[in-house]
Amino acid sequence: MNNPKIQPIPFSSVHFSDSFWSPRINNHADTTLRYAMEKCEETGRNANFDKAAKALREGRMGEGGHVGIYFDDSDVYKVLEGAGYTLHNHPDPALKADADALIARIGASQWEDGYINSYFTLTGPDKRWTDMERHEDYCIGHLIEAGIAYYRATGEKNLLEIAIKAAEHMESLFGEGKRHWVVGHQEPELALVKLAALTGEQKHLEFARFLIEERGHGHGRGRFWDTDIFLNGPVDCQDDKPVREMDRVSGHAVRAMYYYSAVADLARELDEEDYKKVVLRIWDNLANKNMYVTGGIGPDKRNEGFERDYWLPIVDNYCETCAQIGMVYFNHRMNLLTGEAKFADIVELELYNGVLSGIALDGKHFFYGNPMQTNGVKERSEWFRCSCCPSNLARFIPSVGEYFYAQQGSTIIVNQFATSSVSLEVEGKTFTLQQETNYPWEGKVKIMLDGDAGQKVTLKVRLPGWCRSASLPGATLTQDGYFTIEAEAGQTLEYHMEMNARLVTASELVEDVKGMAVVARGPLVYCFEQADNNCEPELLYLSPDFQAVLRRADFANGAVVMDIRVGKTTMTAVPYYTWNNRGKGWMRTWLPLKTDPSLLYAGHTRK
Amino acid sequence: MNNPKIQPIPFSSVHFSDSFWSPRINNHADTTLRYAMEKCEETGRNANFDKAAKALREGRMGEGGHVGIYFDDSDVYKVLEGAGYTLHNHPDPALKADADALIARIGASQWEDGYINSYFTLTGPDKRWTDMERHEDYCIGHLIEAGIAYYRATGEKNLLEIAIKAAEHMESLFGEGKRHWVVGHQEPELALVKLAALTGEQKHLEFARFLIEERGHGHGRGRFWDTDIFLNGPVDCQDDKPVREMDRVSGHAVRAMYYYSAVADLARELDEEDYKKVVLRIWDNLANKNMYVTGGIGPDKRNEGFERDYWLPIVDNYCETCAQIGMVYFNHRMNLLTGEAKFADIVELELYNGVLSGIALDGKHFFYGNPMQTNGVKERSEWFRCSCCPSNLARFIPSVGEYFYAQQGSTIIVNQFATSSVSLEVEGKTFTLQQETNYPWEGKVKIMLDGDAGQKVTLKVRLPGWCRSASLPGATLTQDGYFTIEAEAGQTLEYHMEMNARLVTASELVEDVKGMAVVARGPLVYCFEQADNNCEPELLYLSPDFQAVLRRADFANGAVVMDIRVGKTTMTAVPYYTWNNRGKGWMRTWLPLKTDPSLLYAGHTRK
Repeated sequence: MNNPKIQPIPFSSVHFSDSFWSPRINNHADTTLRYAMEKCEETGRNANFDKAAKALREGRMGEGGHVGIYFDDSDVYKVLEGAGYTLHNHPDPALKADADALIARIGASQWEDGYINSYFTLTGPDKRWTDMERHEDYCIGHLIEAGIAYYRATGEKNLLEIAIKAAEHMESLFGEGKRHWVVGHQEPELALVKLAALTGEQKHLEFARFLIEERGHGHGRGRFWDTDIFLNGPVDCQDDKPVREMDRVSGHAVRAMYYYSAVADLARELDEEDYKKVVLRIWDNLANKNMYVTGGIGPDKRNEGFERDYWLPIVDNYCETCAQIGMVYFNHRMNLLTGEAKFADIVELELYNGVLSGIALDGKHFFYGNPMQTNGVKERSEWFRCSCCPSNLARFIPSVGEYFYAQQGSTIIVNQFATSSVSLEVEGKTFTLQQETNYPWEGKVKIMLDGDAGQKVTLKVRLPGWCRSASLPGATLTQDGYFTIEAEAGQTLEYHMEMNARLVTASELVEDVKGMAVVARGPLVYCFEQADNNCEPELLYLSPDFQAVLRRADFANGAVVMDIRVGKTTMTAVPYYTWNNRGKGWMRTWLPLKTDPSLLYAGHTRK
Repeated sequence: MNNPKIQPIPFSSVHFSDSFWSPRINNHADTTLRYAMEKCEETGRNANFDKAAKALREGRMGEGGHVGIYFDDSDVYKVLEGAGYTLHNHPDPALKADADALIARIGASQWEDGYINSYFTLTGPDKRWTDMERHEDYCIGHLIEAGIAYYRATGEKNLLEIAIKAAEHMESLFGEGKRHWVVGHQEPELALVKLAALTGEQKHLEFARFLIEERGHGHGRGRFWDTDIFLNGPVDCQDDKPVREMDRVSGHAVRAMYYYSAVADLARELDEEDYKKVVLRIWDNLANKNMYVTGGIGPDKRNEGFERDYWLPIVDNYCETCAQIGMVYFNHRMNLLTGEAKFADIVELELYNGVLSGIALDGKHFFYGNPMQTNGVKERSEWFRCSCCPSNLARFIPSVGEYFYAQQGSTIIVNQFATSSVSLEVEGKTFTLQQETNYPWEGKVKIMLDGDAGQKVTLKVRLPGWCRSASLPGATLTQDGYFTIEAEAGQTLEYHMEMNARLVTASELVEDVKGMAVVARGPLVYCFEQADNNCEPELLYLSPDFQAVLRRADFANGAVVMDIRVGKTTMTAVPYYTWNNRGKGWMRTWLPLKTDPSLLYAGHTRK
């Protein structure tokens, strides 16, 4: 039986009316996006385009004084991508006018041949496409994604046309029978797949495949490969081996995620079985040997990336916010490729932990790295010199709806949970699915189906990996990890995931958390902060017979916090993503796990 | 601060309208009780009284042919106690007439001096009170409990008067300055405490204390001590040491529980601190070294009792139903004595597991022993030659309401959960508390308070030991294990105990379940039966990342059963108390626990 491919359901079909994501998305529109746009202006990122345009206009390329880092253009693109998503969620003529004006400034900096990069235009046009590490390709990737987003939201082709011209410029230079090229920081590959989907032009897919296949054959050249900025040479940017030989995660984590995302995309788009095998192999290694309990990845500050398997230190670990966003991209694509729920599990893990930790509740302070433990020095910053994480969040937050549903013929796949509605087309007719829930604070989800009388669908509802016990009357738990049920318009389903506080422990091979545990509940990992716990953090511990009293916090929009009793003491745990929103202070996730040897059945009876 | 003593709230104040206990209690009234009464008639138990009465009337004691075992009178008393409770729950003139007639037959067998025992009256009146093991005292204990129950339910003193006369007969023979006496099978002690509470006569309390203090000084005489029916001599009936020196559970489990129950009673009634220390010490040893995960106690078939600490074999273990009923008695009293929730935890554990396993869903088949595992031979019997367990269940089931509430001044203590109402008196005024819940299948309990406008109470609501996380808005979790909240008439509280499937493991010192685990959910322990699982039981195993689909069974009144997925296989678990209700077959509780070493965070993410 040849099933149709699983199709993503765009965020634009999903409408939130919940108390978790809606406030976040609104705060993003009101604060984060505007703030990021201002920062791009204020830091000279936007002005770089103006200066480049001027240099180009005046034929004085190489002059004009670039400000910032060579890949700063990408921040502007990412923020514009976020503006596109935001304009879809919250039509706003003023925002559109500002974005259009900015796009015009960007367009003015594009060369006749399609080349666009303010850094080289301003510092050394002769060095165009000579150093594979200088992110010209990476920036164009983000330009493509922004162009697509802006077009989808507004119908305006202004940014998209710039992007297509830049893509075709790259395609004119590199490829079979043309120049070799290894992308220094992967990103254009996945952008090109999106572009192919939008335009229907297969050439973009083929070019993405070319870029993927170029890696690992010694074609890499430039600053990155020649100097030792990274620890281990080519492996740090996944250029040590051809794609088909890749068998574990390696190197810079964000690059890795964008790379694997593109490979998963191509596996699905081109039915490329070898690619599928590669990403499945890599995923196993990633999820089962190289991922933090929060979904954090890339522990090592030095290469911003992976180290040996099971090396997951909890003090000063890196775990860049962008890498966790990359995990969403990769795992979402793996879910679309395979139809297996376990990948949507990790999307969820990132949404509520690894990614969300990167942004403050106020929407304008950011973490670059997300440690598992700190002594109180660490706090979120307003912006960074290298500000990839804030600009990534600026585009990510308004598009979270992207990860909630998927569709395969007349099968609707429910991957994430929030009070929301989605409109789909099933066999040519509109079908609406609504969720009503207090997720992630409670595990009950009412699912209401609406469509033409008698209209039938198959519904797949994810049973999260964290969930020990659940019920969905009438449904069967299938091997893909979903509850599967035949349903029809007019029906209401009552899904219940039991959401209990739990202790999570790691494989014994993780030296850094041996004998330790983390508290979690539902999709959320919890942590202990100085703000709530007036004691020495070294004194805290957990035990298998802990009990937690749940209550709504007076911050973080009423997040559920837990007063945890262990022995005679009580300590308070808050969702990890909420940490460092109430001033500086120590924070811990993993605590020593002490078992009371005098208990016969810990957690079942009490001493 | 001298708090008033915690007072029990009798079952007669509690009215069930739930779907768990109500059907049980109704089935008991319709089936179990009538069935037990018929069995007492059919097996000659009742006729023994008639024959004894005739012998007594005719002055031919020692003749007349006793049928059955020497303590069979106690079954008749226990069934009458159950009839008393049942008449309270379900007034029924026919049942009362039958009971009254039976009581008259019993009364006719009582000697002028108060002595009553059909066995000695019929077989050897000269041997009265010569063999401490022959249960004359034990039978009188049950007579006293029955007399009180029947009086409370009907206002009739017929049985109570017989009982008081028998008690006073004993008191005339034994005591300071009279004969020594060690009760062979403890029971009159706790009955005498009840009698003292009813009559206000301190002498019964003092006599109970005398009986307790007699033990362990070498006064024991008779068959039990002189022959070696039990394994280890006096220790097997707790006559090896004086009460104040007792530091662990030992010997015959039912005797032990009735003994400790009486000691706890006296500690509370007489403010006897030494007794309190003894029972606390014993309880620690009992609950943390000698109890099965179901609440079962007394693993050893040979002494029907305890062995060394942590010796808890799971094949052919004994765990007599009566011993588990005794656990309820003991733990209920410990809760009243100390006000600590952990004792009510064990009451609950017994109610839903250890005790309830003893009786079939049809209400007329019984287990004497309750194994943790069987190959398929074991099944419930209609009745036993030694039928203490059926008759104990006949009195226990209709009185389960006894364990739901307690009161301390204007503090109402909620120990157990079911849709039900209770009427109390708070500061001289009637106060009503209602519960609405699907417990034990769901952990939400709505508690509605009703009384005079503005009437205030303190409410204590137990947080069960099995419960990992819970919420009761406005309440504080106090060190006694209760949520404590100031409340008033008219208020409704929403209590939520998160009720998740869980794995329970035992201390490493329990050799027999090393590397194994049991599945539980809420207060219920689950088991695997052949009826649901078409495989070799040896192949079953559990893993820390198991997931359970909850559904309502088509038997056992819609009990929640679990389809448990481990790896690629699914097996079905049913509540332990429901086992062996669908024909013979193998049954397992403990299964090997296999950890998948390739999982980084088992039960948090999936492979």
